[in-house]
Amino acid sequence: MTKIEPKIPKGMRDIEPADMLLRAGIIAIIREVFERYGFEPIETPALEYWEILTGKYGQEAERLVYHLTDHGGRELGLRYDLTVPLARYVAGRKQLIRPFKRYQIQPVWRAEKPQKGRYREFYQCDVDSVGSASMLVDSELIALTVEVMSRIGFKDFQVMVNNRKILQGIVHLAGIPVEKTAEVCQTLDKFDKIGREGVDRELESRGYQPNQRILLNEILDLSGGNEAILESLKMKLADSPVGLEGVAELAEILGYLGQSNVEPNRVRINPRLTRGLDYYTGPIYETELTGIAFSSLGGGGRYNGLVGIFSDEEIPAAGTSFGLDRIVAAIEELGQVPLKPTTTRVLVARISAEQVNYSLRIVDLCRKAGINAEIVFDQSKLKKQLTYADARGIPIALIAGSDEESAGQVQLKDLRRGTQDTVSLENLIQKLNELLQEKK
Amino acid sequence: MTKIEPKIPKGMRDIEPADMLLRAGIIAIIREVFERYGFEPIETPALEYWEILTGKYGQEAERLVYHLTDHGGRELGLRYDLTVPLARYVAGRKQLIRPFKRYQIQPVWRAEKPQKGRYREFYQCDVDSVGSASMLVDSELIALTVEVMSRIGFKDFQVMVNNRKILQGIVHLAGIPVEKTAEVCQTLDKFDKIGREGVDRELESRGYQPNQRILLNEILDLSGGNEAILESLKMKLADSPVGLEGVAELAEILGYLGQSNVEPNRVRINPRLTRGLDYYTGPIYETELTGIAFSSLGGGGRYNGLVGIFSDEEIPAAGTSFGLDRIVAAIEELGQVPLKPTTTRVLVARISAEQVNYSLRIVDLCRKAGINAEIVFDQSKLKKQLTYADARGIPIALIAGSDEESAGQVQLKDLRRGTQDTVSLENLIQKLNELLQEKK
Repeated sequence: MTKIEPKIPKGMRDIEPADMLLRAGIIAIIREVFERYGFEPIETPALEYWEILTGKYGQEAERLVYHLTDHGGRELGLRYDLTVPLARYVAGRKQLIRPFKRYQIQPVWRAEKPQKGRYREFYQCDVDSVGSASMLVDSELIALTVEVMSRIGFKDFQVMVNNRKILQGIVHLAGIPVEKTAEVCQTLDKFDKIGREGVDRELESRGYQPNQRILLNEILDLSGGNEAILESLKMKLADSPVGLEGVAELAEILGYLGQSNVEPNRVRINPRLTRGLDYYTGPIYETELTGIAFSSLGGGGRYNGLVGIFSDEEIPAAGTSFGLDRIVAAIEELGQVPLKPTTTRVLVARISAEQVNYSLRIVDLCRKAGINAEIVFDQSKLKKQLTYADARGIPIALIAGSDEESAGQVQLKDLRRGTQDTVSLENLIQKLNELLQEKK
Repeated sequence: MTKIEPKIPKGMRDIEPADMLLRAGIIAIIREVFERYGFEPIETPALEYWEILTGKYGQEAERLVYHLTDHGGRELGLRYDLTVPLARYVAGRKQLIRPFKRYQIQPVWRAEKPQKGRYREFYQCDVDSVGSASMLVDSELIALTVEVMSRIGFKDFQVMVNNRKILQGIVHLAGIPVEKTAEVCQTLDKFDKIGREGVDRELESRGYQPNQRILLNEILDLSGGNEAILESLKMKLADSPVGLEGVAELAEILGYLGQSNVEPNRVRINPRLTRGLDYYTGPIYETELTGIAFSSLGGGGRYNGLVGIFSDEEIPAAGTSFGLDRIVAAIEELGQVPLKPTTTRVLVARISAEQVNYSLRIVDLCRKAGINAEIVFDQSKLKKQLTYADARGIPIALIAGSDEESAGQVQLKDLRRGTQDTVSLENLIQKLNELLQEKK
């Protein structure tokens, strides 16, 4: 048999232990907050029928969704996001209790051009409320976003908020045809990257007339606190009922957030925020780090049309998503959370074949006390065993030869400090707990 | 647009909230025990190169692995197990510290004929030590299996243990050609289902001569405790060096398990255990419930040839796997662990539009105190709101109208007992904690 190269497919990667531990910590926080707000977990299969996946996304799907044919000749695809599976889940359950508050943390697959830090398989952490049009839903999603970000340990972040109805009103009042909304939104969305002048130049080059650009430019110029921006928007949109509805919804959300004790500076109305997906119908939100240049750590909004695409009814819904890989990348860039190389705290070394049973008793003692510990499988020079512990990042080694066994003792080596002590088995756990606590 | 049927692909399923909570609890136990023993998590991509996946499994792969071609024309497949990805992972990392003790909990996909309780997507929880041939590795895998099963709450279970070298010795001494080993193993494996007579009849019908069947029948007849079986095997295999090696390895493992305080009745030498996969080379283990008729909750063994298939060297390794779906099915069948319908403990009801802010304060109070709580989004008749809480399995409802708001109080309804109390906001959390603790 010719040797097969151990390659990994393009755009894919393995997750290493240190990364896994960081990710597990983030997921634990996200899950805890989601459940604190009354959301419940579900999972859906990686494979969905091709027509389900492409029913919503149309041509984009042909390009980015992984396609396959199963052994019975059925056309399938790997899930592209967690929203279409949610819509399929809801439509298939007539008896589902509403509001249906679900969260879902699973990988999705997109055959995008791989870039630094961008992979073709990545995790989404989605949280959605299905069945209510109340702004309580949207304010809750924003409040839990602030809580997740704070608990993870981010200091400088904001949730930017806007409303598709406001954008709709602006486009209408500017005398721009409705079908151009997406194009205008795409350009406005570049405000943070190319600035006010850049946006206006691009609008001009796309053929928008000066009289059409006046209102858009006024929107670009809006600044100040949330109250001031809402006041300005109310005046500028006075002739657009849908625009005013959007302003009123944002005011309602801000009111609820105040009652929920969300720090006011964490939420910022940003009339230039548009978000890419065209299925949003109301408030939209996006989480941004203000300290470093990261596009977005996640976001969402209200999408009253989408969940119903497989049903006979329109079902109001809103949701938001956290990008696990982006959060991890941001943490690593900020260097705020040190990567813990391993969860193993103790290595039980072995310096003579006779002490294997004594060593087993010691490792068992540690494990029973809740201390993650491993025993050396293959006896070798002690130096080699300590090098292994060091390379793994294991902080403590326990060493026992025949002298230690007959005295019921063990040599405790703290590899971080380079110290060594003789400890009796009776005192071992207490001593380990002290040492491991100190440096936590 | 014609309506798309919200169907799920054949052999696939959604995991509902109550099931998810049970699964999360099991995974938490498994992870904690794995880390207690010094194993570290990794994840590998769902997609691997087709030649990697089929390099080991050959024709079986063509049949059961999901195949696809990516957008660059590369031949890929969905991972079939977690062992081949491990071999690829190890081979691609020349600097990997050994022993490499990793665990991995991810779904795998197999296009098998769907049956009751069998799906084409299911989770495996794999734990493997790569790089050591010591029997300490195998004994540790068995010890942690016992710990996982006990912690999950199973009462009647055993880990059955055998050794491929013993089976090899038996086949050799019985004068059966080596290439028939797999066939003989398959038949022996049916002992629990078709009994001693059934196995012998099948061997006869397959053309094995009486003189070839004598030793096999003696093996089928072996009974008694572990020590007695090892003694008998030692005598019967006296002329087979490889067989004796197998017996010695099992004796060594039992010795180590004794030192690790594993209850002796949890581990049983079973010379009829063969396990399906032909890559095992030494000790094999399988976890079985003794109370109910379940084939197996998982198992593993030593496979010194497999991890090296993508490398230039033979790398000793051993591992075991827990089948999450089978464990869940067993728990549900035994009815030992009650399914918790939701993690939400409190529903804050809403009986008048004016109290929305007061209700938000109440739900915020609960959440800040670590109590999972949700607020009613859309006001409706109180009866409807309480029906919703009941249907969801939420045990407590909090109700506040204008009287309660002016008095700084809330009505606390315990839906399990049907009782109702007036509680001040100051005492609310303490009262909730008391009530929620009682019924845990």
